[in-house]
Amino acid sequence: MKYQKNVGGKVNSEALHKISYGLYVVTSGKGENCNGQICNTVFQVTSEPAKIAVSINKQNFTHDFVRESRVFAVSILSKNTPLRFIGHFGFKCGRDVDKFEGINYKGGKTGTRIVTDHAVAYLEAEVIKEVNVGTHTVFIGKVVEAEILTDEEPMTYAYYHKIKRGVTPKLAPTYIKKGGR
Amino acid sequence: MKYQKNVGGKVNSEALHKISYGLYVVTSGKGENCNGQICNTVFQVTSEPAKIAVSINKQNFTHDFVRESRVFAVSILSKNTPLRFIGHFGFKCGRDVDKFEGINYKGGKTGTRIVTDHAVAYLEAEVIKEVNVGTHTVFIGKVVEAEILTDEEPMTYAYYHKIKRGVTPKLAPTYIKKGGR
Repeated sequence: MKYQKNVGGKVNSEALHKISYGLYVVTSGKGENCNGQICNTVFQVTSEPAKIAVSINKQNFTHDFVRESRVFAVSILSKNTPLRFIGHFGFKCGRDVDKFEGINYKGGKTGTRIVTDHAVAYLEAEVIKEVNVGTHTVFIGKVVEAEILTDEEPMTYAYYHKIKRGVTPKLAPTYIKKGGR
Repeated sequence: MKYQKNVGGKVNSEALHKISYGLYVVTSGKGENCNGQICNTVFQVTSEPAKIAVSINKQNFTHDFVRESRVFAVSILSKNTPLRFIGHFGFKCGRDVDKFEGINYKGGKTGTRIVTDHAVAYLEAEVIKEVNVGTHTVFIGKVVEAEILTDEEPMTYAYYHKIKRGVTPKLAPTYIKKGGR
């Protein structure tokens, strides 16, 4: 049992970026009144029954859709997803463009749209809790539908950054001001 | 814009396992009164200031330590972490054994112990919110210290399962009853 005394105390943002994530399109809304965005902060919080959590920036257009419709879907992106597709959902705003234009999607059980392009699987959830965490809201949802679409490997956030040389948008929970990543 | 009508509606647990995670030791408590466990459900929820969330089963011994001490630390495990080490923190209970016996750790800013063995980085947090999600509690903490320890690649949960052939403990948020994974 070796003990090392603590010295200093600082937050190195690079350490936070050692947390592993996937890459997802989170959609919300009902029928034609839907929007979607790229997100890396999705995780399962319980298995019986299955519940998932997602952290969304309050400034994002999709945030309003989740708050109002109380449903959201998560499309788990494949490792082979083109950067252009990620840019479409990640760096454009649904206030300016119809993000579903030219995109394949299906109608979900909850009435929301689920993006099927480049998705290896999808999850659809009904919001049971929302937690105010400052700049973001953590929405916790009960999974009402989940299905696998392809056998492809999911994209990891590390792969997106290292291999695909993708960038982190300013409103993401994992954004670093000084650039890097 | 191609639309596909929804048919059926079922939850395929395998779809939930397409979400990407890392592998972590979460420790909590103060001074000598500490415990730790393996966890895969850690994510960042905001960047300014940095806050992280972790989902912990209410039946786990570490759960009580987080509730009482209001602090926790996350050691982000390296890809090279031996299965034996993961088994030590993942499949033994702190009620029966002293999990820090023979383990290298350091004292954190909050007074908790941070496991440094096989850790590429660590994060230390003060609980600001706890969310009851049924079988588990999601603890949300403000990061008060974060540091990188080595240049090694972090272990992903997919790597742990596929390459290391690791298993999921029964109380994990991502456990499937029928086995599989």
